[in-house]
Amino acid sequence: MSITIAYIGGGSKHWAPVMMQDLALTPDLGGELRLYDLDLPRAQHNQAMGEGIFAHADAVSHFRVRTCETLAEALRDADIVFISILPGPMQCFANDLDIPLRYGIVQTVGDTTGPGGLSRSLRTVPIYTAFARAIAEHCPQAWVINYTNPMTVATQALTREVPELKVIGCCHEVFACRSFIGMMAAKYYDIPIKHRNEVAVNLVGLNHFTFFAGATYHGHDVWPAIAAWIEQQSNDQGDYWRDRTQDALAREAKGRYGSCDGLIQLDFWRRFGVFGAAGDRHLVEFVPWYIGSVERLRRWGVSVTGSAQRLDNWVPDNVDTLPEIPERLKRSKEEGIDLLECLVGNKAMVTNVNVPNRGQIPWLPQHHVVETMAQVERDRVIPHVVADFPLALQTHLRRIADTQALTLEAARSCDRDGALAALLADPLCHLDTDQALAMLDELIAANAPWLPADRQ
Amino acid sequence: MSITIAYIGGGSKHWAPVMMQDLALTPDLGGELRLYDLDLPRAQHNQAMGEGIFAHADAVSHFRVRTCETLAEALRDADIVFISILPGPMQCFANDLDIPLRYGIVQTVGDTTGPGGLSRSLRTVPIYTAFARAIAEHCPQAWVINYTNPMTVATQALTREVPELKVIGCCHEVFACRSFIGMMAAKYYDIPIKHRNEVAVNLVGLNHFTFFAGATYHGHDVWPAIAAWIEQQSNDQGDYWRDRTQDALAREAKGRYGSCDGLIQLDFWRRFGVFGAAGDRHLVEFVPWYIGSVERLRRWGVSVTGSAQRLDNWVPDNVDTLPEIPERLKRSKEEGIDLLECLVGNKAMVTNVNVPNRGQIPWLPQHHVVETMAQVERDRVIPHVVADFPLALQTHLRRIADTQALTLEAARSCDRDGALAALLADPLCHLDTDQALAMLDELIAANAPWLPADRQ
Amino acid sequence: MSITIAYIGGGSKHWAPVMMQDLALTPDLGGELRLYDLDLPRAQHNQAMGEGIFAHADAVSHFRVRTCETLAEALRDADIVFISILPGPMQCFANDLDIPLRYGIVQTVGDTTGPGGLSRSLRTVPIYTAFARAIAEHCPQAWVINYTNPMTVATQALTREVPELKVIGCCHEVFACRSFIGMMAAKYYDIPIKHRNEVAVNLVGLNHFTFFAGATYHGHDVWPAIAAWIEQQSNDQGDYWRDRTQDALAREAKGRYGSCDGLIQLDFWRRFGVFGAAGDRHLVEFVPWYIGSVERLRRWGVSVTGSAQRLDNWVPDNVDTLPEIPERLKRSKEEGIDLLECLVGNKAMVTNVNVPNRGQIPWLPQHHVVETMAQVERDRVIPHVVADFPLALQTHLRRIADTQALTLEAARSCDRDGALAALLADPLCHLDTDQALAMLDELIAANAPWLPADRQ
Amino acid sequence: MSITIAYIGGGSKHWAPVMMQDLALTPDLGGELRLYDLDLPRAQHNQAMGEGIFAHADAVSHFRVRTCETLAEALRDADIVFISILPGPMQCFANDLDIPLRYGIVQTVGDTTGPGGLSRSLRTVPIYTAFARAIAEHCPQAWVINYTNPMTVATQALTREVPELKVIGCCHEVFACRSFIGMMAAKYYDIPIKHRNEVAVNLVGLNHFTFFAGATYHGHDVWPAIAAWIEQQSNDQGDYWRDRTQDALAREAKGRYGSCDGLIQLDFWRRFGVFGAAGDRHLVEFVPWYIGSVERLRRWGVSVTGSAQRLDNWVPDNVDTLPEIPERLKRSKEEGIDLLECLVGNKAMVTNVNVPNRGQIPWLPQHHVVETMAQVERDRVIPHVVADFPLALQTHLRRIADTQALTLEAARSCDRDGALAALLADPLCHLDTDQALAMLDELIAANAPWLPADRQ
Repeated sequence: MSITIAYIGGGSKHWAPVMMQDLALTPDLGGELRLYDLDLPRAQHNQAMGEGIFAHADAVSHFRVRTCETLAEALRDADIVFISILPGPMQCFANDLDIPLRYGIVQTVGDTTGPGGLSRSLRTVPIYTAFARAIAEHCPQAWVINYTNPMTVATQALTREVPELKVIGCCHEVFACRSFIGMMAAKYYDIPIKHRNEVAVNLVGLNHFTFFAGATYHGHDVWPAIAAWIEQQSNDQGDYWRDRTQDALAREAKGRYGSCDGLIQLDFWRRFGVFGAAGDRHLVEFVPWYIGSVERLRRWGVSVTGSAQRLDNWVPDNVDTLPEIPERLKRSKEEGIDLLECLVGNKAMVTNVNVPNRGQIPWLPQHHVVETMAQVERDRVIPHVVADFPLALQTHLRRIADTQALTLEAARSCDRDGALAALLADPLCHLDTDQALAMLDELIAANAPWLPADRQ
Repeated sequence: MSITIAYIGGGSKHWAPVMMQDLALTPDLGGELRLYDLDLPRAQHNQAMGEGIFAHADAVSHFRVRTCETLAEALRDADIVFISILPGPMQCFANDLDIPLRYGIVQTVGDTTGPGGLSRSLRTVPIYTAFARAIAEHCPQAWVINYTNPMTVATQALTREVPELKVIGCCHEVFACRSFIGMMAAKYYDIPIKHRNEVAVNLVGLNHFTFFAGATYHGHDVWPAIAAWIEQQSNDQGDYWRDRTQDALAREAKGRYGSCDGLIQLDFWRRFGVFGAAGDRHLVEFVPWYIGSVERLRRWGVSVTGSAQRLDNWVPDNVDTLPEIPERLKRSKEEGIDLLECLVGNKAMVTNVNVPNRGQIPWLPQHHVVETMAQVERDRVIPHVVADFPLALQTHLRRIADTQALTLEAARSCDRDGALAALLADPLCHLDTDQALAMLDELIAANAPWLPADRQ
Repeated sequence: MSITIAYIGGGSKHWAPVMMQDLALTPDLGGELRLYDLDLPRAQHNQAMGEGIFAHADAVSHFRVRTCETLAEALRDADIVFISILPGPMQCFANDLDIPLRYGIVQTVGDTTGPGGLSRSLRTVPIYTAFARAIAEHCPQAWVINYTNPMTVATQALTREVPELKVIGCCHEVFACRSFIGMMAAKYYDIPIKHRNEVAVNLVGLNHFTFFAGATYHGHDVWPAIAAWIEQQSNDQGDYWRDRTQDALAREAKGRYGSCDGLIQLDFWRRFGVFGAAGDRHLVEFVPWYIGSVERLRRWGVSVTGSAQRLDNWVPDNVDTLPEIPERLKRSKEEGIDLLECLVGNKAMVTNVNVPNRGQIPWLPQHHVVETMAQVERDRVIPHVVADFPLALQTHLRRIADTQALTLEAARSCDRDGALAALLADPLCHLDTDQALAMLDELIAANAPWLPADRQ
Repeated sequence: MSITIAYIGGGSKHWAPVMMQDLALTPDLGGELRLYDLDLPRAQHNQAMGEGIFAHADAVSHFRVRTCETLAEALRDADIVFISILPGPMQCFANDLDIPLRYGIVQTVGDTTGPGGLSRSLRTVPIYTAFARAIAEHCPQAWVINYTNPMTVATQALTREVPELKVIGCCHEVFACRSFIGMMAAKYYDIPIKHRNEVAVNLVGLNHFTFFAGATYHGHDVWPAIAAWIEQQSNDQGDYWRDRTQDALAREAKGRYGSCDGLIQLDFWRRFGVFGAAGDRHLVEFVPWYIGSVERLRRWGVSVTGSAQRLDNWVPDNVDTLPEIPERLKRSKEEGIDLLECLVGNKAMVTNVNVPNRGQIPWLPQHHVVETMAQVERDRVIPHVVADFPLALQTHLRRIADTQALTLEAARSCDRDGALAALLADPLCHLDTDQALAMLDELIAANAPWLPADRQ
């Protein structure tokens, strides 16, 4: 089967090599892969790497790799469009963390929700709105697979502009959580686990604020396995729910800011009966309970990565060197290429996707991009209807969905008042209205070069 | 795995032998099968047959078969409950057809909708309401698989009384339609078909008034195959949409009242873009268009089976003879045992089910029992959210759902005014209000012995 | 207070004189009245009449009357826009009645629903869509008061095109029904009635298919008064519900086709507990029960006005004579000018209006134009939320709303398939799909000159 | 007209004298007033006072006043039931304020929402549930007018238990806000104001968290008047939005904790375009923005009344003295008796009421008790449908409604986990889950004697 893939943000340093290797290791496919990026040299660098990968002895599929200078050229009659972009330089991201922090708002990730997520949305949405129009013009039948954060708002920006577009937001956050409960279940039922897909889950939520409302492992209920795991841990290490400040500080001393214990995932399970299906650092950003201060976060074993650490970790590109082709090609744990295989009809699978709500979560607004399990097959995605879900968390999800809707509208219309309304609706915002507006104005001013001219 | 199955209506002449053979041919299962029936000798007769079946050399599973004299005994701690009953003798059914006919209302089936469906509901719902309470008392965790018509109203009578019950209405009507389009697709794409499951369908509707909103065959769109089939037929036999009266009359002369051409299924496809996923004789009972008279029906190749023919075909039971055990056991095309295997965790499948709406058809009322595809697995049923569906048919489905809701409430509360309201809402009823009431009173009087005493 | 009124269809023979007299008799108002009509001489004729009326000694308000040659000129900065137009000549209307009749479809009015209503919508909606755009351009803040039928579809055509428009559909059908039950209540409670407004009603429905869900007369429940009236009538004239064929025939012999007894209004009350708040000839067109044939209608005392009688009653215009100014000006029972007074802030009242649903009937679609009571005051209309309403009639109202939505979309996009879908959803249509399409094509062909060119 | 009024909580020190004077000054009424209270001597004391009031020369209506020893006796065949009770002694209220404060949660009122509102709900709901059953038994046709806080939860507790009850929650909070904007409008338009009803308002919300989405004064838009007032104030006193800490401190020094400037009401107007229609001390408890600390509140001119001040202000009863009958009877500004007059058919009015949502606020859940304008007339309340409302505040109202629903269910079923869920959903709660649970347990322990035995 010969297909055409457009990759917007094809200069990506991380995703592109992974995706091209996955593609090279996928049977029964071939065609053209077009890389498009504002940073042309990076795309060209990836083109060279891709040529190496598809020429590798391990490769079972062969794609012609081409760098495109215009978006139109990349999209024309494409079958699949991947999007993974970075809206603005790392300094924008640093601003998104530092300015709110000066107002007392702590953010562990800062790219999805909270003031950071809003600020990132303000610069991402206009770009995605333009993408939507271009796709509708050049390849209206293509499936668009989005990787960029803020996932929900970015993906929804596409269908908000052109409702007919076929979109999937693809995120690996759930994968690790599925593996996490799979580990517990494998231990409890004494059935060795090979792949996270052995755990059947009932997933409900909005990207990065998702929950397993239930799960089975080879037909066995996973919940008792979790209870047993907690008990075992308590026996081994003392009360499971103990204050984890020392653990967090120890990890921070080693520079391991991103590590945590999954205590928040489990606290949701303990308090609401559903298991948090995203990492703790994401979950804490969606409710006002845990993230009141750096100290309160550490109590749960969660650390905050400051902007300095993030900037330090950011290795500047060097596209002058020759691309390194790995000795052996390796299939990653990512699913973008699996989705592609399903959509072109080569296989089918049930997995987590972010798609517009058409009934799968009946208590969230129709059309809002939600994350649930779905069957993905030739040219369609069939969402699974979610099961009963605690009313106590429904209200938080509705609130986030409303906040995202306010954010999207504000970002589409470049509206300062709308952005303030979105900010005030956000769980992380506990500022008075005048302070919130001051913070918003600082964010807008700091990132002004990457915002549409009429908002500055 | 050892399980307990309760079979309400276990004296069934047709379903019981089929079900017991299917069960005997299912690996990795065993336990007890309890037969309960108002007609005790018939249940005992089936017990004897069952003992023969499970002792047969072909059998791979072994169940102890037991006749229970009380419902409570049958249900106690059951894992699975099958229900297939006949509410009242065949004469009731004859009344359901004959009385409306005297008022000019033609019915091709008469057990699902229309005045016949209403009348049958009046005697079925009180029985099912009692079943619901008994199940809630004796085996609240059991899955209930219902076969009795009117499927939607009967199944919903269970959850209307006890919302927590786990119910599935199982009907084979869709199977044949899936095979029908599979046949066309196999021809068109030249890929031989072995099983209807090779056709992936997007199913939407209420039992016996269901539609394929789309279908693929090994990943290929089925719609062009249908168009090609119509064209081929037109070439071979003259205009496909021609008047089929002569065909119908010829079939009637041979006593083949039940045969038809699928022209109505295809007329829905032609006019609304979705394929009728029930037989023509069912579909015509849900809209006022085709069934105005016996003659108009014949134009579409559809015949009416009178009550006389139905009574003639009804062979009275003889439970004094020994049950005949088939020489070789044979797995049927029914799915009841497949559902059972899924629910106990031995396999998983995607198939059509009738379950309460929790979002799968967002434009029909929540909780109303609807028919769509669903994934069935260990202890849960996960409905697939339906795709876009023509507004023009949404309105007819909403109307039927409303009529069913009126019917259910009237039958629950034994309310003559409510039953009149349900009748007047029904697409088959074109009588004035006074005539409709006269007809209703005749139906109630004729079937009075099988109605709750307080309604007579 | 000085205001500007635009009157689209200002050449109207009937409404214009009534409206201008009402306006002349309204205190505290003045300004300009602009008449616009495709038939310019008729508008000029009305201008002359208006000048006479406002110069009359009885007049308490004075408006400058002006004929406008363009729609833009009439609308520019208007405060209030009246619309009352006739889409196409009477021959179109005759076609709307005669063609369906040949297919066995009887229509008593034929301008609101059924094939006649659909056909009229096909020629009205494109005109109203253009009006909406013109109003949005020239006087976006104006209130639009529509008189034209089909009331619901025409009014909704405006907000469907420009959602922000401020519209009210104004119809006097409810007035007479309010007077009817007022008469019964006045008799029963022995309190003489002076004005229909003394009856407080709870109105629910879609224009011409409306119901009083309850009513009080000077604080007393009206329902017992209706029961007493029926009993009294039965005592005086024999069983109230008797066959009224002879009455209908007698009236037809005198050419009084439009008269009837209100038996249908009361049959709804008897069967569903709510009083039909439109004349019988309208009500029978919305359900399939009464209108199966001319004979069945007569049983309820309802006659059918054929196209011949309608054409005979249509007196051709003569604009060459001088307009006749009445000796004394007289305030009519119409409410258009009352609404105007409320909207400009001179008074407030509670009355029946057709406005987009924003919650007043929660079981009908949002935004659909529905008819309920509302408080009308300065620059706003506040709908009253309706009370409990029988589910049995909710389903019929939902069906009509869906049919109207299909009709509107078909008429907007000039879509033959869409029009067929609307036709098949209509309660009056009991034709097979092929016959329905043949009838539709005949209607389109017959009225082609008054349809948008691209549909012919 | 002779009516029977039951007054539950008839020993009330404040409401009873007011209500009885209002009743005595209402023409065309008479009958019996029954006082019921757990504190029998206080009810008897009020009986004596009532006898004096109705015997007063000013009285125009005469009611027999009777103390009832049982609820059943008070309710039997009553036409109107007033409820105004205090659930538990003042010490409970003090606990509701003091315990949360120790966890850092500031509350300005503490009886409606937040931990205090939850705690009060826990002891109020069981009482109201019992009231509902008693009313359904003894006077199912009566109208119930509730005065007790938490208004929404208490009123909804009645219909949650018996959906058919006819209930109105009556609160004067909106009256003062209507007067406030009336004052501005009167100044701006130079039309002296006599009564708040001269301001027509579009009210939207949940009790104590309500907003005017628009208002007119004698037909003039009020919004420009508000803008002018702010400007004038800024000219006179410096920037209107200045820090008001000094003002708050000055008032506190004088013991005037309850006073404030309406700055929060206006901040909502400035930021969201709708005017806060409850006092600042109520509004700040529903959003997380203003109430982070005592200091932040003072910046807006709002003070916190500590439990000590509240206990000090609470004058213990002395029922041994003779009741004082005022020299002249005086009609209050309360509306309870006006509602009564409307419901018995003596007049009609449009005012703010708390009644179950049946469409008036389409974006809040059906049946939830909401506050809007409504027409009140003989035996019915007709809510006005609300106009457009900013999405930014819809989300906060939805959140409060969800929190109230969680609170009500938890209180009905005496469920600690449910109460925790309600607490975590509340805007005032920024505690971690373990801290929140500790606080909840403290509240439950402190007020245990006034909670149902099975929750302690």
